[in-house]
Amino acid sequence: MEIQKGNGGEEIEAPNNITIKGMLGLLMANTEAEGKKVISLGIGDPTAYSCFHTTSAAQEAVVDALRSTKFNGYSPTVGLPHTRKAVAEYLSRDLPYRLQADDVYVTAGCTQAIEIALSILARPGANILLPRPGFPIYGLCAAFRHLESRYFDLLPEKEWEVDLSAVENLADQNTVAMVIINPGNPCGNVYTYQHLKKIAETAKRLGIVVIADEVYGHLAFGVNPFVPMGVFSSVAPVLTLGSMSKRWLVPGWRLGWLVTNDPDGTLKSPKVDLLTITYMFLCLLPSQFVERLKKYCDIGGGPATFIQAAVPTIVEQTQEVFFRKTINLLKQTSDICYEKFKEIGCISCPSKPEGSMAFMVKLNISMLKDISDDIDFCFKLAKEESVIILPGLAVGLKNWLRITFAVEPSSLQEALERVKSFCQRHSC
Amino acid sequence: MEIQKGNGGEEIEAPNNITIKGMLGLLMANTEAEGKKVISLGIGDPTAYSCFHTTSAAQEAVVDALRSTKFNGYSPTVGLPHTRKAVAEYLSRDLPYRLQADDVYVTAGCTQAIEIALSILARPGANILLPRPGFPIYGLCAAFRHLESRYFDLLPEKEWEVDLSAVENLADQNTVAMVIINPGNPCGNVYTYQHLKKIAETAKRLGIVVIADEVYGHLAFGVNPFVPMGVFSSVAPVLTLGSMSKRWLVPGWRLGWLVTNDPDGTLKSPKVDLLTITYMFLCLLPSQFVERLKKYCDIGGGPATFIQAAVPTIVEQTQEVFFRKTINLLKQTSDICYEKFKEIGCISCPSKPEGSMAFMVKLNISMLKDISDDIDFCFKLAKEESVIILPGLAVGLKNWLRITFAVEPSSLQEALERVKSFCQRHSC
Repeated sequence: MEIQKGNGGEEIEAPNNITIKGMLGLLMANTEAEGKKVISLGIGDPTAYSCFHTTSAAQEAVVDALRSTKFNGYSPTVGLPHTRKAVAEYLSRDLPYRLQADDVYVTAGCTQAIEIALSILARPGANILLPRPGFPIYGLCAAFRHLESRYFDLLPEKEWEVDLSAVENLADQNTVAMVIINPGNPCGNVYTYQHLKKIAETAKRLGIVVIADEVYGHLAFGVNPFVPMGVFSSVAPVLTLGSMSKRWLVPGWRLGWLVTNDPDGTLKSPKVDLLTITYMFLCLLPSQFVERLKKYCDIGGGPATFIQAAVPTIVEQTQEVFFRKTINLLKQTSDICYEKFKEIGCISCPSKPEGSMAFMVKLNISMLKDISDDIDFCFKLAKEESVIILPGLAVGLKNWLRITFAVEPSSLQEALERVKSFCQRHSC
Repeated sequence: MEIQKGNGGEEIEAPNNITIKGMLGLLMANTEAEGKKVISLGIGDPTAYSCFHTTSAAQEAVVDALRSTKFNGYSPTVGLPHTRKAVAEYLSRDLPYRLQADDVYVTAGCTQAIEIALSILARPGANILLPRPGFPIYGLCAAFRHLESRYFDLLPEKEWEVDLSAVENLADQNTVAMVIINPGNPCGNVYTYQHLKKIAETAKRLGIVVIADEVYGHLAFGVNPFVPMGVFSSVAPVLTLGSMSKRWLVPGWRLGWLVTNDPDGTLKSPKVDLLTITYMFLCLLPSQFVERLKKYCDIGGGPATFIQAAVPTIVEQTQEVFFRKTINLLKQTSDICYEKFKEIGCISCPSKPEGSMAFMVKLNISMLKDISDDIDFCFKLAKEESVIILPGLAVGLKNWLRITFAVEPSSLQEALERVKSFCQRHSC
């Protein structure tokens, strides 16, 4: 693995070679078959718990689309027209302008949206700026596309805001984009309007695209409301990535989107100004960007046609009460975590989670007598307590832990009690 | 577009920049809004016709998996274990050895399987051998992965067999694989056991992988039975690509697979022999091939979990009578085409279609007074007769046509009458 400098100046290994699922699989294999029931606080997939089941309106919309027998055939590789339109309208509710159906590319989950975004931006010698801690698929995908990853820090003492001076220092004429994930995975933060504006202004100065990963869009339950990055797309061009996975609690449906937030037509027209300098480098002409994007969609798999066909009904018929229930539950479970970790001496939380389904807590290794680092902590915890937690190294921060709180409350409480007892047993 | 030599020595444009769907979209836009009902013989997606609807056993298996609420979450990125097992068992029925679940990677249709296969084989300077005529996604995907495409001819006078001497001449030490599509798209041929064996022996001599695209597997209705390339995987390593799309008539479900046919463990063990020389080049060590494949699956979208979950039931419960009905219908419609084209002087069929859903016919341009080439033919046909046919150039053969016969018989007959009348009108 690549060695890089961490937040505290310590050397850490970049996450290019680890995936979250890979690490969790290893931890799971380390639990004792005869021991306690395994509880995972490891992955942002709460669907195993009945309190996190999707709405039946969504499920039955898919059943109806399937049984209609009208949607067993291929869809256009960019997505069904009425699905693109429904996503455009859904996202436009929170924007100062209206997205068009043509701005939306329907993808097999947010993962494929990431893959498409990075692949169409990749060029020989190009680099991309990624957050640390972050989501490892970005680094892995960039590596497969020969796109150099450069990591900027998120600042725990500033509610995980982007270290914008680091972004300015890392960028050069070969930088094509920066990635932000908001609401934050793995940090559980929600950026303010002002901070998002500063990010856009930085991107404008650098002549780069903002890739805004909003897969946890609307899952905000703290002080800051969720503001989509697309609000600032007349400052800098924004590619918004999202999906139904988290808000509708259906990650297995693989229904996501990549959206070109381009109210001024920068990506479509060959107007040459400061913003388009990067595009000139990227695509020879900015107008080729959209052409390249469309063509790239032809070589991917895409989501099932009948699931796409259900999207307009799902967006229309999902009741606000369903969304509110999820938000309330996540608020409750994140509070449970935050309060419990206060009781555990060797673990500290720099800030209270306010969004997404996970947050980061810091291990004070010096307070533990026989634990060498976060990886050691998580493997011993899995073995002794059958609790799965993702070591921070997997998301780029050594000696931190990523805690997923999208877990049924009583299971969560039990898991946290086990963590507490584990920590007490291993304290100096 | 890249200029290359065609079968007849004429210069043709390689299909890297055209996709079938792109071309068909242009043709569709050229039909007259007020004219006859549009009939498309253009795309291998027959689901618009009720005679080509899937079995209700398949549909209801998906409904049940969805309503169980057990499969709304993520699947492993290589696929659900019991889906992998079901595909392994399904494919093993036709093989002299048993595939294991671990050999199967579940993909979002065969398109994603192509993308994965080419991406994991791509290396700086590498090239891949593709059939001409062929399926344009291969060339497009290779171009995106900086993998050089080299085209070998399929020989119309030999029932579209591979020109194996051309394959030997094209290959060099940087060749990583050759692609065969059997049953053939776009040629409608089915290779004999003997020819497949020769292909494997050629691949062995060259130290390359055979990528066997069997998306039309089992759709054979002529003299030659369908023989999977995996039968010869102890001669040369074979990656089999397939899907439920065609045999189950559900291309929109995006449920495909990539299978490592590797009975001797060449891809898994670091044994060094003639066969592994290419792998040494490809992956440093052959054992890394499978690791790379697994990791690559992490950055893709993959098919919906609940559709995957239905696969074991679908494979088990689909009645032979459903498959037989499709085969009989395709035999009938391909015969209709073959007989009708015999009546059209300016079109000739080198061989009768025996498999898949499409075949190639040759245009004799010299017999037409005001048609300059296949593209001109198809655009004028679309405009005058509202019949959509894919020009051969889109699959690599100028002045041929690709005819899809997976069309409801009466519509097919009407379309062919219109083609006949068009040809008569434009004959010298």
